Amino acid sequence: MAVDVALQLELEALYARYAEAIDDGPLEAWPEFFAEQCLYLIIPRENVELGYPLAIMRCESRDMLRDRVTAIKETMMYEPRYLRHHVTNLRVLSREHTILTATANFSVIEVLPEALPRILMCGRYQDTLQQHNDSWLFVERRCIFDSTLVPNSIIYPV
Amino acid sequence: MAVDVALQLELEALYARYAEAIDDGPLEAWPEFFAEQCLYLIIPRENVELGYPLAIMRCESRDMLRDRVTAIKETMMYEPRYLRHHVTNLRVLSREHTILTATANFSVIEVLPEALPRILMCGRYQDTLQQHNDSWLFVERRCIFDSTLVPNSIIYPV
Amino acid sequence: MAVDVALQLELEALYARYAEAIDDGPLEAWPEFFAEQCLYLIIPRENVELGYPLAIMRCESRDMLRDRVTAIKETMMYEPRYLRHHVTNLRVLSREHTILTATANFSVIEVLPEALPRILMCGRYQDTLQQHNDSWLFVERRCIFDSTLVPNSIIYPV
Repeated sequence: MAVDVALQLELEALYARYAEAIDDGPLEAWPEFFAEQCLYLIIPRENVELGYPLAIMRCESRDMLRDRVTAIKETMMYEPRYLRHHVTNLRVLSREHTILTATANFSVIEVLPEALPRILMCGRYQDTLQQHNDSWLFVERRCIFDSTLVPNSIIYPV
Repeated sequence: MAVDVALQLELEALYARYAEAIDDGPLEAWPEFFAEQCLYLIIPRENVELGYPLAIMRCESRDMLRDRVTAIKETMMYEPRYLRHHVTNLRVLSREHTILTATANFSVIEVLPEALPRILMCGRYQDTLQQHNDSWLFVERRCIFDSTLVPNSIIYPV
Repeated sequence: MAVDVALQLELEALYARYAEAIDDGPLEAWPEFFAEQCLYLIIPRENVELGYPLAIMRCESRDMLRDRVTAIKETMMYEPRYLRHHVTNLRVLSREHTILTATANFSVIEVLPEALPRILMCGRYQDTLQQHNDSWLFVERRCIFDSTLVPNSIIYPV
């Protein structure tokens, strides 16, 4: 089963830089991975399986993502924390000209002050990307997390 | 040290699809990654190091793997749960014509209802694969997990 | 954004073998990934961000790394444990002739006897490597871990 080697590694690098913007900053770089018209969802797997549309974070344009960043940096109150993503098992599912779909597994480790690391969330990205100049932008990113329990501390995007 | 780029990415894709069958289903796809005559073991690292053959799961043919799937889906009683694999550090160790050996690190995160994610198991795959048409089948997969404690809830394969 | 495919996979294999030396041994192989003159640091992210140089492990030559291995194997007292690394999101940041810089995310899962796996540490490698024969040696490896809490059980390197 042939893999498009260059595309695979290009996307792995893109997903790594995306995670870096969240884990190590600057967080302002995060919305720039998306197309102007886009859909970003963090949604429990149980809802996806039951066909419920309810998401715990929903942004419908790059501007909304930028507003989210402003809120995180300026107006939200929360305990400071570190995040660390692992993104593995990335696979391109389909490609037609300048559009592709892909999936990957993610886990997000959260480290609160004076605490040991713990897994905040794990799950699967379901993505649609559009080619843009010599890179790719997310048109849709669904972060489907494996939980029936909604974590009460989703401050940062996934 | 030259890496066979196409083979490396082909195997990474195979391992990703294998994990997907367990994490996201359909679980019935899992036995199809194996040769008809095969050996599948989940075995504590301590036993491997001490030379004890005792495994906590042992299947000696694809039919036994299929039986296992039937048991999980139809006859076993257990609390529903989500699993999520991370497979990293995949390396081809040897290749002779249509047979290769490979190793990779794995961790399995388990999410029980109303609970936060936790690491169920981590360890290392030790694999032998055989080329079959344009893909590879597992002839032997040893899932050697880093623990002296045997988890009491190994329902799904690793 | 073009990725040097061969280099990327060569480094991924190198990082996998590095992790294997720590997780599966022999630990004596670990110092051999470094140049004779080198810097190895395990340092809390908070210190890096505040500009404090204090590291919880600091070795300034390959000989010091070898001394560390001897200490771990012969003189230190600690509970036996298993470690398992996940290294993801590896990216080459710059390359000039025979020197390159790279970064990757890591997490280290620790398994103590009769205990479930837990995340000992997560963070980011910041590396400088030098080409040596047909491979690469670490001239500098900074293991920057996401924590304000210093784990009291850092026995092994990261």
